[in-house]
Amino acid sequence: MKTPLVLAAALAAALASAEASGLDLPKNVSDETAACLECHRQYTPGIVYDWAQSRHAWTKPEAAFDKPAITRRISAPKPPEAFRGKVVGCFECHGQKTGTHADTFDHMGFSIHVVVTPKDCETCHPVEVSQYAQGKKANAYDNLAQNALFSQLVDTVAGGWEWKDPHLVAVRSTPESRWETCYGCHGTVVTVRGMTKVQTAMGEIEVPDLANWPNQGVGRVNPDGSKGACTSCHARHGFSIEDARHPHTCSQCHLEPDSPAWNVYRDSKHGNLYEVREAEFDWENVPWVIGRDFTVPTCAACHMSLVVDDKNTVLGQRSHDFGARLWVRIFGLPYTHPQPLSGATHTLRNTDSQPLPTTFDGAPAAQGLLSPEDQASRKVAMTKVCNGCHNRQWIEGHFRRFDVTVKETDTLVRTATALMREGWKRGVADPKNPFDEPLEHLWLETWLFYANSIRYASAMTGAPDYATFKNGWWNLNNTLKKMEAAVTREAEKR
Amino acid sequence: MKTPLVLAAALAAALASAEASGLDLPKNVSDETAACLECHRQYTPGIVYDWAQSRHAWTKPEAAFDKPAITRRISAPKPPEAFRGKVVGCFECHGQKTGTHADTFDHMGFSIHVVVTPKDCETCHPVEVSQYAQGKKANAYDNLAQNALFSQLVDTVAGGWEWKDPHLVAVRSTPESRWETCYGCHGTVVTVRGMTKVQTAMGEIEVPDLANWPNQGVGRVNPDGSKGACTSCHARHGFSIEDARHPHTCSQCHLEPDSPAWNVYRDSKHGNLYEVREAEFDWENVPWVIGRDFTVPTCAACHMSLVVDDKNTVLGQRSHDFGARLWVRIFGLPYTHPQPLSGATHTLRNTDSQPLPTTFDGAPAAQGLLSPEDQASRKVAMTKVCNGCHNRQWIEGHFRRFDVTVKETDTLVRTATALMREGWKRGVADPKNPFDEPLEHLWLETWLFYANSIRYASAMTGAPDYATFKNGWWNLNNTLKKMEAAVTREAEKR
Amino acid sequence: MKTPLVLAAALAAALASAEASGLDLPKNVSDETAACLECHRQYTPGIVYDWAQSRHAWTKPEAAFDKPAITRRISAPKPPEAFRGKVVGCFECHGQKTGTHADTFDHMGFSIHVVVTPKDCETCHPVEVSQYAQGKKANAYDNLAQNALFSQLVDTVAGGWEWKDPHLVAVRSTPESRWETCYGCHGTVVTVRGMTKVQTAMGEIEVPDLANWPNQGVGRVNPDGSKGACTSCHARHGFSIEDARHPHTCSQCHLEPDSPAWNVYRDSKHGNLYEVREAEFDWENVPWVIGRDFTVPTCAACHMSLVVDDKNTVLGQRSHDFGARLWVRIFGLPYTHPQPLSGATHTLRNTDSQPLPTTFDGAPAAQGLLSPEDQASRKVAMTKVCNGCHNRQWIEGHFRRFDVTVKETDTLVRTATALMREGWKRGVADPKNPFDEPLEHLWLETWLFYANSIRYASAMTGAPDYATFKNGWWNLNNTLKKMEAAVTREAEKR
Repeated sequence: MKTPLVLAAALAAALASAEASGLDLPKNVSDETAACLECHRQYTPGIVYDWAQSRHAWTKPEAAFDKPAITRRISAPKPPEAFRGKVVGCFECHGQKTGTHADTFDHMGFSIHVVVTPKDCETCHPVEVSQYAQGKKANAYDNLAQNALFSQLVDTVAGGWEWKDPHLVAVRSTPESRWETCYGCHGTVVTVRGMTKVQTAMGEIEVPDLANWPNQGVGRVNPDGSKGACTSCHARHGFSIEDARHPHTCSQCHLEPDSPAWNVYRDSKHGNLYEVREAEFDWENVPWVIGRDFTVPTCAACHMSLVVDDKNTVLGQRSHDFGARLWVRIFGLPYTHPQPLSGATHTLRNTDSQPLPTTFDGAPAAQGLLSPEDQASRKVAMTKVCNGCHNRQWIEGHFRRFDVTVKETDTLVRTATALMREGWKRGVADPKNPFDEPLEHLWLETWLFYANSIRYASAMTGAPDYATFKNGWWNLNNTLKKMEAAVTREAEKR
Repeated sequence: MKTPLVLAAALAAALASAEASGLDLPKNVSDETAACLECHRQYTPGIVYDWAQSRHAWTKPEAAFDKPAITRRISAPKPPEAFRGKVVGCFECHGQKTGTHADTFDHMGFSIHVVVTPKDCETCHPVEVSQYAQGKKANAYDNLAQNALFSQLVDTVAGGWEWKDPHLVAVRSTPESRWETCYGCHGTVVTVRGMTKVQTAMGEIEVPDLANWPNQGVGRVNPDGSKGACTSCHARHGFSIEDARHPHTCSQCHLEPDSPAWNVYRDSKHGNLYEVREAEFDWENVPWVIGRDFTVPTCAACHMSLVVDDKNTVLGQRSHDFGARLWVRIFGLPYTHPQPLSGATHTLRNTDSQPLPTTFDGAPAAQGLLSPEDQASRKVAMTKVCNGCHNRQWIEGHFRRFDVTVKETDTLVRTATALMREGWKRGVADPKNPFDEPLEHLWLETWLFYANSIRYASAMTGAPDYATFKNGWWNLNNTLKKMEAAVTREAEKR
Repeated sequence: MKTPLVLAAALAAALASAEASGLDLPKNVSDETAACLECHRQYTPGIVYDWAQSRHAWTKPEAAFDKPAITRRISAPKPPEAFRGKVVGCFECHGQKTGTHADTFDHMGFSIHVVVTPKDCETCHPVEVSQYAQGKKANAYDNLAQNALFSQLVDTVAGGWEWKDPHLVAVRSTPESRWETCYGCHGTVVTVRGMTKVQTAMGEIEVPDLANWPNQGVGRVNPDGSKGACTSCHARHGFSIEDARHPHTCSQCHLEPDSPAWNVYRDSKHGNLYEVREAEFDWENVPWVIGRDFTVPTCAACHMSLVVDDKNTVLGQRSHDFGARLWVRIFGLPYTHPQPLSGATHTLRNTDSQPLPTTFDGAPAAQGLLSPEDQASRKVAMTKVCNGCHNRQWIEGHFRRFDVTVKETDTLVRTATALMREGWKRGVADPKNPFDEPLEHLWLETWLFYANSIRYASAMTGAPDYATFKNGWWNLNNTLKKMEAAVTREAEKR
C-alpha cells in the first residue's frame, strides 16, 4: 500500500504533466474524482479520455430537470443531493454505497469498489434498474445455473472428452471454460477471494482478488449481490445511449447459430438499410423521433427505446425489460410458447415436472406463462411501433405468416424429438444425458440452431436466404434425414 | 368506410397539429398528395418523413431536363405532363394507372392502389423498367415456379418430414414456408382475395386483402400483372440511388452459402477497402466518377452503374439488366455455361430435355445461350470497367486464372454427379426426387454451395480464405469423400 | 511498341483534355511522374485519382524532418536525395532500382517495373521493411512451400478427386487452385515468363508476362527476389496508414474458420464498440493517442501501432513484425507453443524430426522457440497496451483465464490425435496422407477450426457465443464424438 507521501508525490507529478496535456478534462468534478483523474489520466488514460468525452463528464444530474420529462435520460424523481453541483465522475460511481460492496477496499486513501453495479446506477436511473431486474437478462445466470437440465447442457458443451480405449470418457467443465462460453454472455458470479498484490506503474498495490472477473454478462452476479451489468450495453466508460441503440451492441450475444438476431437483422431489409444509412441518423436524441432521427429501426427501436413522432406522440414506451413488447417466445427452447410472466424462467415447471416452459413434445406449462389476453396486449404494443412505418394490412400479413411459421417449426421439432426418443428406445443413444451423443447433437441443432433461426427470420420481417440455406429449412430437414438414417441403421443391425 | 365528415375532421386535426411540428414537408405537392400527407404524417410518420428527405419529395421531374442528359436520373424522353409543377409524392405513385391495378380501392375518397409496380415507375424511368424486364431478376418467380426441377427443389427445401415408424414421410411445403424461403428473394405472386376490414388509428377501414404480401422479391408478380419490385433495391420510401449503390442492398439476397457474392466481396480487397473508405465516397453523384466519387467498386460499379472518368468519358453504361456485363454464368446451377439470351431461364432445355442450361454431366443446351462472339463482347464491356483502375496485364492474369477455376469446379461437380449416379444405381438413394436424401443433399452442396463459392471468389478478384476453408475447396473435397464413403459402404454391405 | 511520335500525340491529347478536368493533380511531381500521369489519368483514371488523394501525392519526403521524430511516417535517417523537392509519384516507385527487378521493361521510353516491392519502399521506410522481413508474414510463402507436411496439406486441399469405380482417385492441385486458395493470402511466386503483347486503349504494347500475377499475399516472392507485398495492408494506390489501422484490412486473411481473428474481434466488446464508434476516431494521427484518437482498439492498436497517451508517453512501440507483442502461438498448428524465434517457421524441427514446432502429441521443439524469459518480456509489452484502458487486476484475470484455455484446448486436441492414431491402427484411415480421408478431415477441424477459434476468442477478450456454438466447444466436442463413432464402428465390424 502506498504511503500518503508517495501518493502526494505522484499527484504532484501528475499535476505538473497535466499542464502539458492537450486533452480537456471537465472542471465540475468532485474533489475525490479530481484525485482519481490526476493519477489515472496517467495510468489508464484510455478510460479517462473515454469518460471525458461522455455525457456523464459534462452534465450535472440536476440539469435534466430543467428540461421536459420526455427528454430526460434519468428517471429519479429528483436530482440526487449527493451529486449536486458536480458531474458524474469516477468516485460518484466507484465510491457509492460503500458498505454494500464486498469488493470495497482502501485505494490511495479512498474507499472504493471495483465492480460498479445496477445498485449504483439506480441512484439516477431507478426505473431502468427496476425494469431490468424483472426481465430474463437480469436472471440470465440463474436461468442456466438453477435449471438442472440447462446446467447439464452447459457442463456438456464446455466440458471435454478423453480417449480411454475403447471409449471416450467425459471430462467435466471448468469454471474457466464455462466463463468463456455460456456464462460469458449470461454472466458470471463475481466473488472476492481476499486481497492480492498487483504490480502497477505506481509500484505494488493491494486490491481485491476477484474470481470470474472480468465479465460483463447480462446476468452477472455482483459482489453486492445485485444482478446484471449495465455495461453489457452501455459500455464503460462512455455509458452512452448511442452505443446501446446500435445493433452491434446486441449482436455481441445475439448471434448465430443459436440466437441469430443480429445475423437475421443484417440480412433483412431493415438491417440492409441500417448499414447504408446509419451515418445519417441522430443516435443521440431523446426521445427518438421515427423517420427523422432514424429511418429504419435497430434492435432498440422495436424492443426498448422511447419512440415518438415529431410531435412527441409516443409510439413505443421505453423499457429495460426487453421482452416487454413480445408475446411469443421463439428461441432458446425446443418449442415456442407464451412469454413467461417472470424473467426467472428457472422457476417454471412443465407438466412432466421438468424445469422447462413446455414438455419435450411441446405442451406448455400450466402456470407462469402469459395469458392469451396479455399476449394480445403485448402484440398491440409492438404493432404500434411497426405502424410508425407500415400500414395495418402490411403488419397483419406479416404476423399471419409468422403465426404459420411458429406452428410449422414446432411440428418439425416434434419430428426430431420423436426420432430421438426412437433412438433412445433402440439404443442408438442413452437418455441419461440428452446432450452428449451424436444423435442428441443432431436433435439439439434442429431446435437450438435451425428452428430458432427460421422463427427469428420470420419474426424480424424476413431474411429469406438465411432461413433457407444458411441455418434454416434446408439444414433442419437434412438433419431430420440424418437422424432417420442413424435410427434406421441401428435397427437394420439388429 | 369513413364518411367524408369523419375524414374532414381528421384533416382538420392533422392540419392543426402540423403547426406544432418541427419537420419540414415539401410545398410543391399535388392536392391529392397533400391530403395523403395530412393524415399519414400522423398515422405512419416514419414513411412520410423518409419520403420527405428524398429526392422525389424535393424535385420536379421537369427539372432534370435543365441538366445534361448524362446527369439525369430519369430516362423518359420528356417530362411527364401529369406531374408538371409538382414533386413526386404519395398520390403520383399510388394513384397512377388506376384501371390496371387489381388492388385499386377507394381510400378516403381517393382511388389508390397498395402495391406500386414497375409499370408505375415506368412513367419517369422507362429505360430502366424495360432493361429490368429482360433480365433474370424480373423472371425470378417464374424461373423457379415454371421449372419442374426447381419447383421440386423448392417444395423439398420448404417442406418437412413426419415420423411414421419405420420411416420419415414427406410433408408438402406451404405457401407461407415457400414465401419465407425461396420466394422471399425470388418474389411472391401478390393477389387480391377481396376486401378486408382493418383497425387503424382512424377506426375501422376497408382495404384490399392481399395474399403473399408483404414481399419485395425481385421477381414479384404484382396485382397489375407486372413483374418485379423496384423497392428490392430502391427501398421505400426514399427510392434512392444511394441505397442501391451500397453492397448491403445486394447482400440481402446474394448471400452464403448458395450465392455468396456479398460474403466474397466482403473478403476481397475491394470489399475490405469499401468497409474502410465508404464514408468518404460521394454516393449521390450521377454519373459516378471513378477514383473521385469512389475509389473501390461496389456491386453497382461493376454490374449496373453509369461509370465515367472525370471528363465524363463512359467506362460502363448504366444497365438495369444486371447480367449485361457477364458472359459466363457461375451460380445457381451445377455447371458453368454461357449466359442465357433471355432472363426467362425456365424456357431453356438441355439435350436431355430437362429445363436446365446444361445436362447433369455439364453439356450446354444447344439453344438459348450466348454465342462465343456475344460472350467476347460482354467480356470487353466488363474489362473496360476493370481498366478504370487495373492495367490490361492485371486483368488478363485475373481472367486467365478465372477460366481455369471455372473448368476445375465443373470437373469436381462431374465427380459428385458420378458418385450420385453410382449411389442411385446401388440403391443408396432414389432418383425420383434428386433433392431429398442424405447422398443427394451432399451432391447439391457440392455445386450450390461449394463450387459456386469457389467460382464467385475467383470472379470477384479473390477471397482466398473463403474459397479455401469457409465454403470452398476443403468443403467440396471433403464432401466428395463423404459421398464415396456412403456409396462404398452400401457396396460393402452387399 | 509505340513510336515516340505516337507517344507525343497521346501526350498532347492528354494535356488538352486535362484542361477540362475538374480533378486537382499535384504540381510538385518529377518530370517522369508527370509523363505517367498525362496518359494514365486517361487510361487508368481510378488509380491516378486514388493516388492524387493520398499523402504520397502531396508530401515531399523531406517535410517529415521538420517535425518531431515521433510523428514521422518515414523511418529513413534522412530524406532520400533522389526525391528531394518532389512528392512521391508513379515513377518514384515504379522507376526505382531498375537493375534489380526482373520485370523492368521499356514503357513509352521509360524504364519501369510492374511489381513494386518492399525493396522499393525501403528507400523511405527501412525500419518497417526490416522488421517485416523478420516476421512470419514475409516468410508466409516459404512456410508452406518449404514445409513438406504443409505442402501436402495445400496440395490435398486445392486438389480434387475423380471417380474411377470402385474408388475416388486423387487429382493433384494446379498452380491456379493453389493461388486462389492458400497462396492467395500467403503469397505467390511472381516470375517473368518473357514479354507479351496486350491490347490497350493506346493500341498494342509489350509488357512483361508475369506468372502468378495479380497477387498481394503477405509473403509474395517478387521478381526482384524480395518477399512481401506492402500493399497487402497499405492498398494501392493510396498506401495509407488509415487503411492499415482498420480491422477490415486484417480481416481479408484472418477469417473463420481457420484463423478467425476478425470474426472473434467482431463479436467481442472491442469489435462491437469499433462498429459503433469508428466514424468518430482520428484514423490519421501519428502517434496514435489512446482514448482521444480512438476509444477501442483495432488489430493495429494491440499488435502494431505506435500507441501513446496525450503527452506522447509511449504505451506500445510501432512494429512491422506483427508478432512482436505475442508470446504464445495459438493458431495454424495443433498445439499452442512459445512463439518461434524466427519468422521462417519452416526451419523448425520437432523431436520427431517433423517440420513442426511441436510433436503430434504436443511436445515443443527443443530449439527455435522463445525462452520463458523472452515470453515474459513480450507479455509485459502487451500488458502495457492493455493497461492503457484496463487495470492490472482486470488484465491478470483475463490472462489467467487464457492460460487455462490454452491448456484445455491442447488437451482436447490430444484426444483428437489419439483417436486419429487409433483409426490409423484399426485401418479406418491411412496415415500416408494425414489430410485426405474423412477421419483425418475431422481431426484437422478439431485444431485448425475449433481449438483455434476457442483460443482466439479467449485471447481477444472474449467472444462467448463464437467460442460456444459457432466454431468452438460445441463443435470440437461433437467432432470428437464423431471420430469415436468412426473408430468404434470399424472396430465393431471386425
